[in-house]
Amino acid sequence: MSFNTFGKIFRFTTWGESHGPAIGCVIDGCPPNIKVKEQDIQIELDKRKPGQSKFTTQRKEDDKVQILSGIFEGKTTGTPISLIIYNKDMRSRDYETIKNKFRPGHADFTYFKKYGIRDYKGGGRSSARETAARVAAGAIAKKVLENKIGKKFKVIGAVTQLGILGCDLKKWDDGTIRKNAFFCPDKSIVKLWEKYLLDIRKSGSSCGAIIEIRARGVPVGLGAPIYSKLDMDIASAMMSINAVKGVNIGSGMSSAQYTGEQNSDEIFQKGKKLRFNSNNAGGILGGISSGQDIVVSFAVKPTSSILKTRKTIDKFGKNTTISVKGRHDPCVGIRAVPIGEAMLSCVILDHYLMNKAQCG
Amino acid sequence: MSFNTFGKIFRFTTWGESHGPAIGCVIDGCPPNIKVKEQDIQIELDKRKPGQSKFTTQRKEDDKVQILSGIFEGKTTGTPISLIIYNKDMRSRDYETIKNKFRPGHADFTYFKKYGIRDYKGGGRSSARETAARVAAGAIAKKVLENKIGKKFKVIGAVTQLGILGCDLKKWDDGTIRKNAFFCPDKSIVKLWEKYLLDIRKSGSSCGAIIEIRARGVPVGLGAPIYSKLDMDIASAMMSINAVKGVNIGSGMSSAQYTGEQNSDEIFQKGKKLRFNSNNAGGILGGISSGQDIVVSFAVKPTSSILKTRKTIDKFGKNTTISVKGRHDPCVGIRAVPIGEAMLSCVILDHYLMNKAQCG
Amino acid sequence: MSFNTFGKIFRFTTWGESHGPAIGCVIDGCPPNIKVKEQDIQIELDKRKPGQSKFTTQRKEDDKVQILSGIFEGKTTGTPISLIIYNKDMRSRDYETIKNKFRPGHADFTYFKKYGIRDYKGGGRSSARETAARVAAGAIAKKVLENKIGKKFKVIGAVTQLGILGCDLKKWDDGTIRKNAFFCPDKSIVKLWEKYLLDIRKSGSSCGAIIEIRARGVPVGLGAPIYSKLDMDIASAMMSINAVKGVNIGSGMSSAQYTGEQNSDEIFQKGKKLRFNSNNAGGILGGISSGQDIVVSFAVKPTSSILKTRKTIDKFGKNTTISVKGRHDPCVGIRAVPIGEAMLSCVILDHYLMNKAQCG
Amino acid sequence: MSFNTFGKIFRFTTWGESHGPAIGCVIDGCPPNIKVKEQDIQIELDKRKPGQSKFTTQRKEDDKVQILSGIFEGKTTGTPISLIIYNKDMRSRDYETIKNKFRPGHADFTYFKKYGIRDYKGGGRSSARETAARVAAGAIAKKVLENKIGKKFKVIGAVTQLGILGCDLKKWDDGTIRKNAFFCPDKSIVKLWEKYLLDIRKSGSSCGAIIEIRARGVPVGLGAPIYSKLDMDIASAMMSINAVKGVNIGSGMSSAQYTGEQNSDEIFQKGKKLRFNSNNAGGILGGISSGQDIVVSFAVKPTSSILKTRKTIDKFGKNTTISVKGRHDPCVGIRAVPIGEAMLSCVILDHYLMNKAQCG
Repeated sequence: MSFNTFGKIFRFTTWGESHGPAIGCVIDGCPPNIKVKEQDIQIELDKRKPGQSKFTTQRKEDDKVQILSGIFEGKTTGTPISLIIYNKDMRSRDYETIKNKFRPGHADFTYFKKYGIRDYKGGGRSSARETAARVAAGAIAKKVLENKIGKKFKVIGAVTQLGILGCDLKKWDDGTIRKNAFFCPDKSIVKLWEKYLLDIRKSGSSCGAIIEIRARGVPVGLGAPIYSKLDMDIASAMMSINAVKGVNIGSGMSSAQYTGEQNSDEIFQKGKKLRFNSNNAGGILGGISSGQDIVVSFAVKPTSSILKTRKTIDKFGKNTTISVKGRHDPCVGIRAVPIGEAMLSCVILDHYLMNKAQCG
Repeated sequence: MSFNTFGKIFRFTTWGESHGPAIGCVIDGCPPNIKVKEQDIQIELDKRKPGQSKFTTQRKEDDKVQILSGIFEGKTTGTPISLIIYNKDMRSRDYETIKNKFRPGHADFTYFKKYGIRDYKGGGRSSARETAARVAAGAIAKKVLENKIGKKFKVIGAVTQLGILGCDLKKWDDGTIRKNAFFCPDKSIVKLWEKYLLDIRKSGSSCGAIIEIRARGVPVGLGAPIYSKLDMDIASAMMSINAVKGVNIGSGMSSAQYTGEQNSDEIFQKGKKLRFNSNNAGGILGGISSGQDIVVSFAVKPTSSILKTRKTIDKFGKNTTISVKGRHDPCVGIRAVPIGEAMLSCVILDHYLMNKAQCG
Repeated sequence: MSFNTFGKIFRFTTWGESHGPAIGCVIDGCPPNIKVKEQDIQIELDKRKPGQSKFTTQRKEDDKVQILSGIFEGKTTGTPISLIIYNKDMRSRDYETIKNKFRPGHADFTYFKKYGIRDYKGGGRSSARETAARVAAGAIAKKVLENKIGKKFKVIGAVTQLGILGCDLKKWDDGTIRKNAFFCPDKSIVKLWEKYLLDIRKSGSSCGAIIEIRARGVPVGLGAPIYSKLDMDIASAMMSINAVKGVNIGSGMSSAQYTGEQNSDEIFQKGKKLRFNSNNAGGILGGISSGQDIVVSFAVKPTSSILKTRKTIDKFGKNTTISVKGRHDPCVGIRAVPIGEAMLSCVILDHYLMNKAQCG
Repeated sequence: MSFNTFGKIFRFTTWGESHGPAIGCVIDGCPPNIKVKEQDIQIELDKRKPGQSKFTTQRKEDDKVQILSGIFEGKTTGTPISLIIYNKDMRSRDYETIKNKFRPGHADFTYFKKYGIRDYKGGGRSSARETAARVAAGAIAKKVLENKIGKKFKVIGAVTQLGILGCDLKKWDDGTIRKNAFFCPDKSIVKLWEKYLLDIRKSGSSCGAIIEIRARGVPVGLGAPIYSKLDMDIASAMMSINAVKGVNIGSGMSSAQYTGEQNSDEIFQKGKKLRFNSNNAGGILGGISSGQDIVVSFAVKPTSSILKTRKTIDKFGKNTTISVKGRHDPCVGIRAVPIGEAMLSCVILDHYLMNKAQCG
């Protein structure tokens, strides 16, 4: 049982509140002798960092990570890796006016009911700021996987739907993803998304998004049935990301509409290579990786902190209204891309180690 | 780490293969002094049992459960409850012809690659027969929850989409669900579904389905952020069910298309009662139950065992084709209803106990 | 969290009561492709079986084990191995007279206070009968270790002190151990022990014992500091055995009396072999195996069920006395030898797999 | 599976190396609304702090703890509590000369073999410096227990044997313990111990010790049989402390020499109070607390870092000798007292919460 720990062998525990002195994580179970430097982690953190475009919150955080333990002379030692990121640009006064109100769609109400405490500053522990810590953990997972599996291993994510606007998945281009403010993989749609999101922001509203993460070069055999299936852990990982409400593996919810012959991926041998003629399974059969790309997508609901006035109650049970000012992303889904990449990397590494334990 | 165990405090471990002598489960962490009799478990097992209509497999299994431990004079003792169900109607000869072939869409290929073993008889451990064991565990979870929370607690599931045919959720009627072969909640659509599925079956094909499970009367405060969120564990639980490829909480994947004001559920006080004006959150905010109904839906892919001829390879790497005879459900999604109910009951009980531990 | 499960990767869950229909266990995380047959398990069970000499309880149990799952064509498949042993020679009437009394030194009082239930028949779940299930699990662990490490791996235990009578550890002889009713490793003391224990039994009393278990051929590097140290898990494993009150690793409690130079084992290289000039560490340094023999000893308290009359209370809080008839071992420590061997085998295998996961 | 995490519900994860920038821990699963301030933790840390008398290492560490998260307006919030202690007085040059040598009795050899890395600076992760982090966790556990159980709850430890010198347990006096440099509970022996240890130190040697920890006011019913017995977790907790080689519960190893009537504690009712006429069980029956004092003792081996010259090998496999200079405790057992208190507090709290979950 571990409330704030994720993983089974490669495990990370995050800590910290939005407006506390710092956030961080402790990574345990990391294999030894892997080269890791702060810069490897910083690269990933920089993708998630707030204040990078007009489409994300204007909170300014360097998100500079420090390694406090577990690395000796540039290499992991197999002991816990402690990472810390100090908080800087906190404006708790933004939250004074909503101190006693529950923001609809947020965890304010449920945290208060559960713990009997209202840490109103920036959402406290429920803030998405926590996700910086896991992006850091994911950066290390990636380094380990590259070391163990080789450079063919790659995890890459993109936003594939922004509010009501989709994109053409056939035009997915890795290079495009890092070159626009939306992690959009389809160059042809970027302009339209830009206009759409500016309108949303101007109107004081927000929108949801769908994110797709792909992992290439994953070995066959990862995943431990029945209750440690690879897709269970991936679904759980994605659902742990703030505001995620749905997760698909491969054809996902759409598979309900298919017939057996439309859905099951035929197998054939081409020379010495085994191939599938489609990937509706999203790279997972019976909870175990098949060697195809792992494909997972998830929906992030629209930012609940909006300017528009909403009905709510305060902590004394009185009806009131709320309009959330402060600095918020019009679409939190965008910054979920590096988080999803990090989580998928951690799950794959975890199962890689588990598989080595039992079947290696 | 627990490959075949589900849960954190209320934990069950299942064992057994489709064509072995028996299947079963061991439930640990059950509170003491709860009245449980075999009949309570049998009722739930009978919902899932094969051979009940022309729309499910014709394998005949009594699925009679025996309690081997953990109950003393009609009450749980707090020690492990061991349940066993003997297998009876196994026809392993049905599987002789596909002994060396990998059925597309099945776990044959991945199990073989992972474990180096091909238990070809009825799919071995990967068979959905395992789910009987968890339905039994879920029956006990329900009894405990009814004892702890009271009769207002209820978990009920239904098939809300059969292949390409949906139903009208506004017509959801609990009473209807148990009165048709599909667990369909909308009486007006049953005839159409019946015709549709008969056609599918005659053509030697299969179809997918969407199942929705609702839990009513769940107390506020269940779920342990950040990495033991209630929705994480629900997503994981549903994804553990054979053939499930997507999971939604509340508005799920659809939430991507909404704006903030469409999606976030407003809160208000009506007399002494707190209310929400919608339930897009599916009863979960920040990973913690809000007191609203928990609403989860999931997609079950079409049965992969179909008569239609499909390309595949054998275990020696040679290209071949396969047509799966034997006795298979044209839509495995139907029998997923009691399984989903069982899994949701187990997750809720588990979090109920967890919450009592930390915050009780 | 797992009340009735032991282990981290190689995990077993036991279930069953002394006077229920059966006891058993489910083993999860076992590597695949290991040859295991019922007879391998039976050999170990027969060492622990009651009724084998006049020094153990006269309850007659065949202790015939059946494998219900997890083995296909003679080999482990990597899926759960379910084992069952039916109870036969239960005489619950022996317990009718003490139905409402708490036997001093037993778990009667604490179980009743904790669970609010009094399963008085043979001690219910707290009976040492449960240990048959773990001996079965240990038998499989041994097979896996022999397969992975080779025949140089051996676990062997002995009784090294019977009540007030010790033995000469320098005379330890593996062959002797199986040739006397006490698992005594020193042939020269057996007669004396025999006379001593007969006297104890005749007087209606009982005595304690010290058991020592040695594991040879254990690779260097097993054990995961800081909180999964090999000696932590060994101490925990031994303390889980009924009636154990103390555990030593190597020189154990005696190490308190030593000076640094007496206690620390010097290291030297002899040809290509690394050697230690003593083994006060019991084969474990910093929680990690050093390649020396693992040496653990533990004390088993005297059987609490004795004929002699003792003061106690009944479950209504009234003072009374008790004299326990029925069939009891005059020294339960003797039958703890195969249990200790089993537990040590399980711990070593578990750490072998864990080490492979992180450092393999 | 958790290498550097201790506990099941109340869990702490420690991190940090002896000569790294800092050490710390993250506590998860702490109940909310408990008053905790840095000073509560500091009091416990100060008991363990080095450099307090001539009988402990002269390394000067303030051991000032900072709370980084999990406390809001003076109270726990139920979210992770992150604690950090910066290292200050590191003299890594002391370790340069032994950089490539394995210190006998230390973890140098086994860590190197396991991880392939030699963090020679102050023992790296295997240093007892790590124990400061758990003393901090224990301080919080104590606060929670005092809040939940009340002031009758108390954990107190003492050194009861210093090398070859015991003390009179009948003279145990809580007040005495904090008034001498040895945590000795028997005033009459302190002078003798002082002389003895000075001699040991002067001779460049070291000695072992026995520590006893008592917990009073523990409720009946804590401990979860079979594999989460209270004594299992206590034994495991104590064995996790550096240099511990043996653990006793109650009469411990001595129980082997007793007869059944000498050992089992008779029960009687005195007025409305239930009493036992002895406490050989150390407060635990069948793995569950009986309401008597929990009594645990453990042996700490003599400090392995001694001036006396010892044979060893270097990391290239060459025979050599070693004499460890630097600043070392002549008896590390002394500073194990607050560590043992902390660990026992954590175990008791953990089981308190577990019991609440299942039986509360």
